[in-house]
Amino acid sequence: MLPTATIVADDREVTTMLQPATTAHHPLAERFARVRALSMALAEPLSDADATVQSMPDASPTKWHLAHTTWFFETFVLRDHVPGYRLHDERWPFLFNSYYEAEGRRHARDRRGMVTRPTLDEVRAYRAHVDVALLAAMTTLPDAAIELVALGCHHEEQHQELLVTDILHLFAENPLEPAIYPAEPKVPVAMPAPIGWLAHDGGIAEIGHGGDDFAFDCEGPRHRALLQPHAIADRTVTNGEWAAFIADGGYREARHWLADGWAWVKAEAIEAPLYWEKQGEAWTRFGLDGRRPIDPAAPVTHVSFYEADAYASWAGARLPTEFEWEAHAAAHDARLGNQMDRAGPVEPRPSAGGPAYFGDVWEWTGSAYRPYPGFQAAEGAVGEYNGKFMSGQFVLRGGSCATPRGHARASYRNFFYPHQRWQFTGVRLAKDLPSC
Amino acid sequence: MLPTATIVADDREVTTMLQPATTAHHPLAERFARVRALSMALAEPLSDADATVQSMPDASPTKWHLAHTTWFFETFVLRDHVPGYRLHDERWPFLFNSYYEAEGRRHARDRRGMVTRPTLDEVRAYRAHVDVALLAAMTTLPDAAIELVALGCHHEEQHQELLVTDILHLFAENPLEPAIYPAEPKVPVAMPAPIGWLAHDGGIAEIGHGGDDFAFDCEGPRHRALLQPHAIADRTVTNGEWAAFIADGGYREARHWLADGWAWVKAEAIEAPLYWEKQGEAWTRFGLDGRRPIDPAAPVTHVSFYEADAYASWAGARLPTEFEWEAHAAAHDARLGNQMDRAGPVEPRPSAGGPAYFGDVWEWTGSAYRPYPGFQAAEGAVGEYNGKFMSGQFVLRGGSCATPRGHARASYRNFFYPHQRWQFTGVRLAKDLPSC
Amino acid sequence: MLPTATIVADDREVTTMLQPATTAHHPLAERFARVRALSMALAEPLSDADATVQSMPDASPTKWHLAHTTWFFETFVLRDHVPGYRLHDERWPFLFNSYYEAEGRRHARDRRGMVTRPTLDEVRAYRAHVDVALLAAMTTLPDAAIELVALGCHHEEQHQELLVTDILHLFAENPLEPAIYPAEPKVPVAMPAPIGWLAHDGGIAEIGHGGDDFAFDCEGPRHRALLQPHAIADRTVTNGEWAAFIADGGYREARHWLADGWAWVKAEAIEAPLYWEKQGEAWTRFGLDGRRPIDPAAPVTHVSFYEADAYASWAGARLPTEFEWEAHAAAHDARLGNQMDRAGPVEPRPSAGGPAYFGDVWEWTGSAYRPYPGFQAAEGAVGEYNGKFMSGQFVLRGGSCATPRGHARASYRNFFYPHQRWQFTGVRLAKDLPSC
Amino acid sequence: MLPTATIVADDREVTTMLQPATTAHHPLAERFARVRALSMALAEPLSDADATVQSMPDASPTKWHLAHTTWFFETFVLRDHVPGYRLHDERWPFLFNSYYEAEGRRHARDRRGMVTRPTLDEVRAYRAHVDVALLAAMTTLPDAAIELVALGCHHEEQHQELLVTDILHLFAENPLEPAIYPAEPKVPVAMPAPIGWLAHDGGIAEIGHGGDDFAFDCEGPRHRALLQPHAIADRTVTNGEWAAFIADGGYREARHWLADGWAWVKAEAIEAPLYWEKQGEAWTRFGLDGRRPIDPAAPVTHVSFYEADAYASWAGARLPTEFEWEAHAAAHDARLGNQMDRAGPVEPRPSAGGPAYFGDVWEWTGSAYRPYPGFQAAEGAVGEYNGKFMSGQFVLRGGSCATPRGHARASYRNFFYPHQRWQFTGVRLAKDLPSC
Repeated sequence: MLPTATIVADDREVTTMLQPATTAHHPLAERFARVRALSMALAEPLSDADATVQSMPDASPTKWHLAHTTWFFETFVLRDHVPGYRLHDERWPFLFNSYYEAEGRRHARDRRGMVTRPTLDEVRAYRAHVDVALLAAMTTLPDAAIELVALGCHHEEQHQELLVTDILHLFAENPLEPAIYPAEPKVPVAMPAPIGWLAHDGGIAEIGHGGDDFAFDCEGPRHRALLQPHAIADRTVTNGEWAAFIADGGYREARHWLADGWAWVKAEAIEAPLYWEKQGEAWTRFGLDGRRPIDPAAPVTHVSFYEADAYASWAGARLPTEFEWEAHAAAHDARLGNQMDRAGPVEPRPSAGGPAYFGDVWEWTGSAYRPYPGFQAAEGAVGEYNGKFMSGQFVLRGGSCATPRGHARASYRNFFYPHQRWQFTGVRLAKDLPSC
Repeated sequence: MLPTATIVADDREVTTMLQPATTAHHPLAERFARVRALSMALAEPLSDADATVQSMPDASPTKWHLAHTTWFFETFVLRDHVPGYRLHDERWPFLFNSYYEAEGRRHARDRRGMVTRPTLDEVRAYRAHVDVALLAAMTTLPDAAIELVALGCHHEEQHQELLVTDILHLFAENPLEPAIYPAEPKVPVAMPAPIGWLAHDGGIAEIGHGGDDFAFDCEGPRHRALLQPHAIADRTVTNGEWAAFIADGGYREARHWLADGWAWVKAEAIEAPLYWEKQGEAWTRFGLDGRRPIDPAAPVTHVSFYEADAYASWAGARLPTEFEWEAHAAAHDARLGNQMDRAGPVEPRPSAGGPAYFGDVWEWTGSAYRPYPGFQAAEGAVGEYNGKFMSGQFVLRGGSCATPRGHARASYRNFFYPHQRWQFTGVRLAKDLPSC
Repeated sequence: MLPTATIVADDREVTTMLQPATTAHHPLAERFARVRALSMALAEPLSDADATVQSMPDASPTKWHLAHTTWFFETFVLRDHVPGYRLHDERWPFLFNSYYEAEGRRHARDRRGMVTRPTLDEVRAYRAHVDVALLAAMTTLPDAAIELVALGCHHEEQHQELLVTDILHLFAENPLEPAIYPAEPKVPVAMPAPIGWLAHDGGIAEIGHGGDDFAFDCEGPRHRALLQPHAIADRTVTNGEWAAFIADGGYREARHWLADGWAWVKAEAIEAPLYWEKQGEAWTRFGLDGRRPIDPAAPVTHVSFYEADAYASWAGARLPTEFEWEAHAAAHDARLGNQMDRAGPVEPRPSAGGPAYFGDVWEWTGSAYRPYPGFQAAEGAVGEYNGKFMSGQFVLRGGSCATPRGHARASYRNFFYPHQRWQFTGVRLAKDLPSC
Repeated sequence: MLPTATIVADDREVTTMLQPATTAHHPLAERFARVRALSMALAEPLSDADATVQSMPDASPTKWHLAHTTWFFETFVLRDHVPGYRLHDERWPFLFNSYYEAEGRRHARDRRGMVTRPTLDEVRAYRAHVDVALLAAMTTLPDAAIELVALGCHHEEQHQELLVTDILHLFAENPLEPAIYPAEPKVPVAMPAPIGWLAHDGGIAEIGHGGDDFAFDCEGPRHRALLQPHAIADRTVTNGEWAAFIADGGYREARHWLADGWAWVKAEAIEAPLYWEKQGEAWTRFGLDGRRPIDPAAPVTHVSFYEADAYASWAGARLPTEFEWEAHAAAHDARLGNQMDRAGPVEPRPSAGGPAYFGDVWEWTGSAYRPYPGFQAAEGAVGEYNGKFMSGQFVLRGGSCATPRGHARASYRNFFYPHQRWQFTGVRLAKDLPSC
């Protein structure tokens, strides 16, 4: 039933998409085409049913991701900036608006899985319709619209990661636990060395996005932040280390836990990371290639902020602040690391060593997601992109194995509620150093 | 998108199914084949996604209905009575057992919609596999097994009705409200005459199933019941009459309602039958052929017991007991009436007049669903079929436009909780007569 | 803290109450005074706080019971029938109306425990005010009002039983488990003999209340019912027998249980009757005199309908119908048995033998609580007394150790939801006999 | 029913308490006695029932506050540091431990209102018992124990504020809305001038508690923080300004609100601050002296973080960070302002003008409650005091009309969840200034 070859958003597909457009491509056209093609590739092995069902309110159906990202381009670029453009279907914006209050009423988030029609194929046709229209219009779009196209590409990359984690969550609900993508060969790797600590003297650091490159509004303004003397771990926590935490009673002792976290552990009967299951004496995990033994050398993932914080407490350490993290990571190349290049069974991999800040797992920080000094949300509907979520959530930094390569930046601020763990989330430790 | 021709379980399909079996057919074989073919026909216009999603815990996906009815034959007939039979897939009983505790652990009822694999096509193959095996074995099955085949056919007919009402409920959740089956021409009909009353002197009546024909265990033992003098309406309540109830404030005055019913009205903000929606001044309903104006001459449907009881109170009447109902209906042919002959947009239709007890809508009675005197559940797993549901539910009698023709009987006891209304449920009034 | 002598509604108290009234007492005056005095005696050992807190939505504070029963007399008798009567406090009807929709808005049932003012003493003053006014007016009241006084006395007796069971429920929530009334000496009793069976040939029986004596509307009309041949147990099930049911896995095997009951057992983690707790190897129960060992010879109590039905199934029997029960019990004196004569630690007691149908525990029947043929609720607010509760509940018959003596009748229909068990509810078995 | 004179913890009461102790008082003894006396005075007008009922899980009964604060001294001082001390009642620690996991199992927080015994008088006796024992032991206690006495006094002051706000919440649940304390005369005050803005150039500030005086662990370590150029309002937002926000549709427009806040507004149907009610055209509020018109000149209170943030957005401003707030407030005397000096109907009062940072209302900041750099929770049970609550909550600064005078400090960090508003919580605005 599953394809035997790995699915890729290959060049042929991108080329095909670009042909209908004018021969004089806009510089952004190829990026647009590549992004759009990867979404299609990710959905390739899915049936109509796979792409329709919603496994929990936090997750969305693949079909919805495919349509919503398309609605974004259709609404904010084509409808607003291309004279004479007619909506593919006037009833669909109600279905595929996510949370933009300024764009009017919309389908309830927790009922997205009820929409069996339009079908996956009809949504694919919707994508083709919008792709053609947008590529055709691109060279004549005003700058403001081009910026929205760029925003739309980054937006779609975010949804690609969600698509992967949401479909993983859905398949995990199936008692048969089918694999989503064909398995790839695993290369045995030596266990990583004990954590090393990278010291920082503290002092003023420049934080946040500052240049002309794209960044989400919440990444700025660039500003100065004061760091305390501290050290940060040179790698993330591994599955093997996490298993030791479990074996040491980590989930059974209240003293490691924040009060809200302990209440969550009790109410949800949490005993291990999401998708872990003990078979005999050994821990297994469910992943995009089905259920398999955990790899003790690989970074632990699918842990909540509460778990990350409890682990850090147990380990005599703490989580880094998002500013500490950025101060260290800014010197590294955000395009390197285990990130998503193509559709397939991505997962965190044992590290070759050294401080890879980008890829494998998003790293929980101890920083609540709040606005930077001087932050102003954009005007209009796209102003709802980030600012309105700035309460109750924690910042994650870096990027994961499901983050499309090129999407990560040192200034990037991901955010989730402290109990959520269906993303590829992991842990890097930090600790205080005495002031000089 | 939808097929333009009506789907039927036609003779060709049945013939095809019978051919693999031996030429010496068992007398039950053709019935088996017809029942199995109708389920397939009902599912014919559905996509994999349509057949997979679960719209509420009370409802099941079409795919699940198709597989569960097959599991019933596979488990209780093939597995238990055909030496050497091997299960189609050993992991599927966990998925497709409904509620038989004696058959072991099973998938949670409210998570049935998570199972995107096996696909609809794979379930179709499962059906074919079991059909072939069962038809091949039928002539050699012991009597006990043949009885289970007969039970399985009745069981599947029940699920056919649920399949129709469940898929209707799912499509109603889609904001686009797509039609499921192509519409059929409506013939305008004169409004029915005012309700006439059929008197009964009361006295001892024989109630319940008694002969050798098939009946569910809960329909017996046949026994004597004492009726009071009463009259029963010669037809069910119409949409037009129900609209008058609404217009008269029926849903806003507590005095018509049972206390539990009033609490339900308030908590759920109930204002009309399920699927009704006011557009301008006119009521519409959603049905298998999409949203359309209500037909004031047709029987009202999709009302709960609470609503039925409140209407009766408003009308100065009451609901009949199940014994009164049976005493009247027993003299009529249960095979006549607006019942389901083939896949298509069934709905209650205006009556030609006269007391059609079977078809259009199931009729709420005032009788709680409890065991008859001397009732004993069958031994083993199939003993869980009815008896364990005998608390908290009310009996409905008759049959509906979605009941496969031939399934209804005067002794048939359908049952639902008093707030449920996604079945084709309606109302026939009764009233007390003075004792002689 | 607790009084050392048993509290009684003694004659002195009644005499005192009667003195302010005219010397020419209405025949109902002494009954009224006795009923009113017992409520006061029941509340005597309670503090203001004990009388104010509400332990669950099903239960009401003692203060509320004392005030609500008073509101009943004030509203339906004094306000409606005594010219010039002024309400004790115009704001209190909002607080103390229970569920009479026709009497206007009222305080939410589940917030009754928030009302710390008026105090218990203020409510006592309210009672005195209404008592004086009513006794003074009684000889001049029209017949309709006198009937309401009689109804009010029966109504208050019902609330006396609720008061006792509600305060028991509250004290059971206190981890210190204080005794409510001083303990009384227990007399050791021999274990009862095995259950004997009383046969009945079946046939037509006259059921329901028929004479001129007081009865609630739901007890009539008197009518004929057809009984099947059956036998009924000559005593109720004991604690010792129930402990054997538990030891035999009664709460762990689905096959004994109705589906709704099994879901309740799982969801609520039910393992024994309410208030039972295992200490070492022995079962104890919490009662009005604190926590003590169960008495194996005494009738089991605080079991739900679901438990009663499961026990009967386990015992190879069934519950009696309410008609069977009444046919047997009608020949016995309803004033005999272990009922409540005065305030104190009432509890079911070992039987002296023989079919005591009244007292100890209310007996679950297998009959859903539905109207008798020809039932009509009374006009106006008091018509809401019974009829509107006729869905979802089961009938209990007899009376309990907390039922004021004189309140019970063979025709009396008590009713509760099948999961409720904070009343003194127990089990009498029945079984089918072959037809002659 | 209510006392006509204002209740005070007067000197006579304190003197009485000090007499049983040795004549050589410990320096802390008088403070201890004063704190303990104020709690008693606050509870003085309450009945046993008033002091027992719990109005919501967030709030605790007065009796519980009185006992829990006593348990704190008994457990951490007397039990742990006074040889031979015997617990007043060995069963009570289970009842009166709040959340100290290290102290073992405890009564569920949301069931505190079930405990009608011990009575209020018995809890008063418990207080006297512990007071006497502690005062007698004080001069001989080791330093570590004396520190715990000091901590216990601050702890009790916190509970005094909670006691006031919890009892207010309870009385607001009573439909009769009784006053808790006798009203005091209101002096009409001129409306405050428009908000003035106090500028700050930004730069490094010393933040957190640093000296030898008492502070909670979460207030330190003292550390450097970097401020941005900004301005802070010279007074808090008034009721009159809030009414304008309401009139301008503040609660009806999603664009002012954080997403979580908007969901809360919709789910809870929030339309005004807690305890506000519109009567005719005018807003009223419920307070410790009953329901009265709002005073437009007084600071608004009983608003959640979500409301505070939405108001700031509507006003074109933002909330201050806790560091900005402290940088401004540190120069002011924390003992001045409208704080609680004695039991009575405290409420925010119109300002005389100028930046009163302490008193009237706690001021929501935009800072999530997280540990300061280098924070370490104390060892043992008291280490659970603050650190474990550092997720999901926001910091409030200052102090309120219900904060015992002397309890406030510039470094004080109060914290609540963003939806909570039963405390005296209000709003001070801030805004960014351009960098130099």
